[in-house]
Amino acid sequence: MNILPQRNIQSYISEDFLLSNEFSRKLYHCYAKNQPIIDYHNHLSPEQISNNKIFDNITEIWLKGDHYKWRAMRTLGIDESYITGNANDWEKFEKWAYTVPYTLRNPLYHWTHLELQRYFDIHDVLDQNNALEIYKCTNEQLNTAEFSTQSLLSKMNVEVVCTTDDPTDSLEYHRDFRNSGSSFQMFPAFRPDKSYTIDSPDDYRIYLNKLSEASGISIQNYDDLLSALLNRIGFFHEKGGRISDHGLENLYYFKNSSLDAHRIFKSVMDGNIPTDEEVSFFKFKTLQELCKMYHAKGWTQQFHLGALRNNNSRMFSKLGADTGFDSIGDFRQAASLSGFLNELDKTDQLAKTILYNLNPGDNEVMATMTGNFNDGSIKGKIQFGSGWWFLDQKDGMEAQMNTLSNMGLISCFVGMLTDSRSFLSFPRHEYFRRILCDLFGKDMQNGELPQDEKWIGKIIQDICYYNAKDYFQFPHK
Amino acid sequence: MNILPQRNIQSYISEDFLLSNEFSRKLYHCYAKNQPIIDYHNHLSPEQISNNKIFDNITEIWLKGDHYKWRAMRTLGIDESYITGNANDWEKFEKWAYTVPYTLRNPLYHWTHLELQRYFDIHDVLDQNNALEIYKCTNEQLNTAEFSTQSLLSKMNVEVVCTTDDPTDSLEYHRDFRNSGSSFQMFPAFRPDKSYTIDSPDDYRIYLNKLSEASGISIQNYDDLLSALLNRIGFFHEKGGRISDHGLENLYYFKNSSLDAHRIFKSVMDGNIPTDEEVSFFKFKTLQELCKMYHAKGWTQQFHLGALRNNNSRMFSKLGADTGFDSIGDFRQAASLSGFLNELDKTDQLAKTILYNLNPGDNEVMATMTGNFNDGSIKGKIQFGSGWWFLDQKDGMEAQMNTLSNMGLISCFVGMLTDSRSFLSFPRHEYFRRILCDLFGKDMQNGELPQDEKWIGKIIQDICYYNAKDYFQFPHK
Amino acid sequence: MNILPQRNIQSYISEDFLLSNEFSRKLYHCYAKNQPIIDYHNHLSPEQISNNKIFDNITEIWLKGDHYKWRAMRTLGIDESYITGNANDWEKFEKWAYTVPYTLRNPLYHWTHLELQRYFDIHDVLDQNNALEIYKCTNEQLNTAEFSTQSLLSKMNVEVVCTTDDPTDSLEYHRDFRNSGSSFQMFPAFRPDKSYTIDSPDDYRIYLNKLSEASGISIQNYDDLLSALLNRIGFFHEKGGRISDHGLENLYYFKNSSLDAHRIFKSVMDGNIPTDEEVSFFKFKTLQELCKMYHAKGWTQQFHLGALRNNNSRMFSKLGADTGFDSIGDFRQAASLSGFLNELDKTDQLAKTILYNLNPGDNEVMATMTGNFNDGSIKGKIQFGSGWWFLDQKDGMEAQMNTLSNMGLISCFVGMLTDSRSFLSFPRHEYFRRILCDLFGKDMQNGELPQDEKWIGKIIQDICYYNAKDYFQFPHK
Repeated sequence: MNILPQRNIQSYISEDFLLSNEFSRKLYHCYAKNQPIIDYHNHLSPEQISNNKIFDNITEIWLKGDHYKWRAMRTLGIDESYITGNANDWEKFEKWAYTVPYTLRNPLYHWTHLELQRYFDIHDVLDQNNALEIYKCTNEQLNTAEFSTQSLLSKMNVEVVCTTDDPTDSLEYHRDFRNSGSSFQMFPAFRPDKSYTIDSPDDYRIYLNKLSEASGISIQNYDDLLSALLNRIGFFHEKGGRISDHGLENLYYFKNSSLDAHRIFKSVMDGNIPTDEEVSFFKFKTLQELCKMYHAKGWTQQFHLGALRNNNSRMFSKLGADTGFDSIGDFRQAASLSGFLNELDKTDQLAKTILYNLNPGDNEVMATMTGNFNDGSIKGKIQFGSGWWFLDQKDGMEAQMNTLSNMGLISCFVGMLTDSRSFLSFPRHEYFRRILCDLFGKDMQNGELPQDEKWIGKIIQDICYYNAKDYFQFPHK
Repeated sequence: MNILPQRNIQSYISEDFLLSNEFSRKLYHCYAKNQPIIDYHNHLSPEQISNNKIFDNITEIWLKGDHYKWRAMRTLGIDESYITGNANDWEKFEKWAYTVPYTLRNPLYHWTHLELQRYFDIHDVLDQNNALEIYKCTNEQLNTAEFSTQSLLSKMNVEVVCTTDDPTDSLEYHRDFRNSGSSFQMFPAFRPDKSYTIDSPDDYRIYLNKLSEASGISIQNYDDLLSALLNRIGFFHEKGGRISDHGLENLYYFKNSSLDAHRIFKSVMDGNIPTDEEVSFFKFKTLQELCKMYHAKGWTQQFHLGALRNNNSRMFSKLGADTGFDSIGDFRQAASLSGFLNELDKTDQLAKTILYNLNPGDNEVMATMTGNFNDGSIKGKIQFGSGWWFLDQKDGMEAQMNTLSNMGLISCFVGMLTDSRSFLSFPRHEYFRRILCDLFGKDMQNGELPQDEKWIGKIIQDICYYNAKDYFQFPHK
Repeated sequence: MNILPQRNIQSYISEDFLLSNEFSRKLYHCYAKNQPIIDYHNHLSPEQISNNKIFDNITEIWLKGDHYKWRAMRTLGIDESYITGNANDWEKFEKWAYTVPYTLRNPLYHWTHLELQRYFDIHDVLDQNNALEIYKCTNEQLNTAEFSTQSLLSKMNVEVVCTTDDPTDSLEYHRDFRNSGSSFQMFPAFRPDKSYTIDSPDDYRIYLNKLSEASGISIQNYDDLLSALLNRIGFFHEKGGRISDHGLENLYYFKNSSLDAHRIFKSVMDGNIPTDEEVSFFKFKTLQELCKMYHAKGWTQQFHLGALRNNNSRMFSKLGADTGFDSIGDFRQAASLSGFLNELDKTDQLAKTILYNLNPGDNEVMATMTGNFNDGSIKGKIQFGSGWWFLDQKDGMEAQMNTLSNMGLISCFVGMLTDSRSFLSFPRHEYFRRILCDLFGKDMQNGELPQDEKWIGKIIQDICYYNAKDYFQFPHK
């Protein structure tokens, strides 16, 4: 299948890519490399997994929906027609191939070539000159059963994937997949953002109708809403769901307030636009109630904090959300996050929690916040999550791991997740593991850690696999 | 001319200063070093350039007006009389020479010795012992035609300099210089801060009189103000101006407001002190209007964000502004910056833009903000600007370039500018280029980039010269 | 005494620990290592020093009160009974020993093994297997006169320690110690936080009674409060006190306010709960008055800014403050800090000042703020303090020193302090010095500094010892 001559193999993305010394190499090749993958949070399509979809071509699987690539192309001055517009798949691929050499030092450059190597055994640096050749070569491979969605995940030694699903989702694809005899497990994750987004009453009422239908509970008041959510959490739990996820600018906390979620709910149902304060309070209260439900089920809750979304109105009106016009915010996080978590901890109803921040300036706030609520009940109860989105690159991951090391215990870390929409993104686990092993290997080399390969190898294996396995407690097959 | 024995040449600031491996050295010496300099933003005096001034002595050209050096001297405990006071030029130089060895690890230490080497061929480490010798040697050289302002710039292979000028400026020195047959071009840049600084009505009215006079438009109301500014933008454009510049704590944005710029203007003209909110709103509106004018002309707008100025009242009353009593603020930047840019983008009136931040904690906010408004229309339309002021040092420049690499495309970067008041500051381009080449060279060395010297050499040349040339589109000679 | 076989000596914490090249090693071994220690701020017990206490066992001296270790144990999932609970001393030590290998990459890991080596000559990596052996070995040593508090400090070449004391403290232990003929000096430091903490009027009135008694001034109104504080500052000064210390989220500043400290004081005395604004204003005013008193005495004032304290109510109610439930806040610092300092500088009443920040994102704000008020009167008048608390680790200290170098003069730095409650924590000075020497040594190695060992050695000695000695001007013996 490998129809391209292998150029540059020695010099670029070699076997020892990112591994700067013997200790790093030993840790990676002997301890990290072969660990299974628990990808506990991503945005893969359950339908495409369940149906074992085969993709038409490399543009469909690689460029469609990948707003990282889109931003790079727009920055280089590529016309939108080649990005999300009417150009055909080959034309779009060619423009991407033209762009790749200009992405040097961006994670896209590493991801691109890792993905070409690991999935397609193509070892060239993609550019306009070899674009057609690579287009043909990848398409030929993609049109085989070895490149179905399930095959792609199996090839990467995936053991578990968790998708991201709305409370109203029927989880039918999860059900169908469960019986398909695949080598890995797929579980849903509960993402109820819409259930407390009362900002636009019209959309919210439409959403509640769907939630009423899904839960079989007619939602007339705030208590009904909570009952419906509890019902769906139970349903997700039955389907193997053990994780929830929330995307927020920052967490809300009200120490004393005369506001009341029941009254706000009623007011919104009556068609009133809530005030900003009412919106925040409603989110605070509803999140608190959800978190207590997660705790009761033994779930893990995830908070993705700090994105400033939909900055470009002109493009939003054309392309909608999640199309490459989001960026890093500078919201204040610490005090309200502390208040929110403490409120749950007061009654010992704080579930296992993973905090992800988008602004690396908040790394230290997050890493030290976890320590306030680690109460000895389980190993690494409150986690500082791996570098997310814009921080999911070498510098970002190193900063997260170094901060976690300095201000917490990296030995308890549940490690990497792709958080990706792409079936070709799983070499990011390899990328993470190489970086992880190099951090520890360098410390062994320079004397900051003892040269105790066995113990450090065990810690590496824990971070790559065992910590996540023990932490999430997914159902067995 | 080199009357000093060359000590320490091998060991300090060698030919390969900051270049840690063969790739770095190859990139610098073969690709970066000989590129011309487009210094697209600085604070040099057009008068001194046009008149081809020759300086009296090293104190005049090196210490006068250099508040970086002043701060260092004050920190070391040097009395103000030797800094801005009555001591004579030799005494001031001697105190500076005494200070230099204490500045080690500060950029002043590198700048000082680079400047002594590049301009004066002096390879010693300046200290109190050799102060007199160096004082004499530099003065002797300075008093020759080879050290006139134009010669100093030519010597550094400068192709373009952009000064910073008030809208009321006659640009007479730019006009005179244009016909002088110099080897480089000098253009004005439009810095209209005073045109919207209504905080003190008295000063503002005096300023408006000057603006009325310069534009020939009698400014009676807010529309007149905008007309006068448009007039001056046209005048600057005729003189080759293609850039504007604004210094602000942060950008202003008002989503909905009952305030009105016309009414605020009238109120201030009537002698009323505006409220803080009125001041901000007025700046917001006026900046929006200016930005649309820049867009119409195809200019580039620069925003320098985040300085906390004039912190020391006692010294401000003695020495005035820009004397070394400014520092880094921690203003919130993201949301209002996004709103400001989006407001312009909505109608596709967002000009090419360079964002500079003073707090490095905002690097990631800035780098990702650019991606929200890069729309494929031109390469690198919205730029994250090079490390500015306190960040104009090795760590600061590396952080800016690494963040830009990780979160944008460094290949599209327009690169370095001095932003300096000093005719001896141009080796900072060399400093930047060495750091740039070493970042790329290290990546080639450790396998994070392919060892494709030709392509990476091209990217280096783009960042040093061609990107700026293509981006700003200065008039040809 | 060294009853354990020395394993891993070559490989872990060798003589050249953290010293990566010949220059680093030369600087450390020939210039830094033998400098005396001036530990100008810590939380050691004056009573235990004065009484020359001998500890029962390693658990008492090492684990009791060390909330760094407690947080690590809780994070690993150790039950609270083994941390602050009813388990016996051996059981607690065993759990700590079990924890240690999981702390790798955290500063605890380095501190633990440095302390075992330097005090007990134990060169093993502590774990569950050798826990009992090490428990016995350390206890045996601790029960000798060579391990009394004074011996422990003398062993580390301590010249001065400054404890932290309430204004109401009798300083009797300082008095007793003064006459004990010890090899080092002990001075009190003035920590008056309680004197302006009016948040809870009941506690505040009780405190004022103590302060009235200590000062002999019956505190009836605000002026009496200031008189009492002035009285105590005089008392501390007599006892050799030259330093004050304040812990705050951020500094307060009110430009114009109709509030009045006298009235607020009276209102609180009358049993009224002050508003948040009144609390802030009262702190601002009282701190300003205190700072003027410090200035009059030639003291140094310390501000520890940015902690978010007591985040966990459940544990606070069980264990109280300072038990491991504090973390890093993200308060805005720059503008109010500038205003506060400027208000004092206006009348030239700004004392020598050390600013410590807990959020490393504020490093640059702090480092550049110092420059605004360094007025040439003394060397390094305003200091950016060494990495504090969560930042007191290799990355944190390097970041502080690099920022200070880039934005100030590291040559004027007064260097390290333990800020610790532990008599075994003094190898942190060694840790700091190794890191310091390696920063300079690397620069010499790579050509960023000249290879001028003598000059750089002098600067190293200044930072380790002489700058602090000159800066604080403690009384001579």
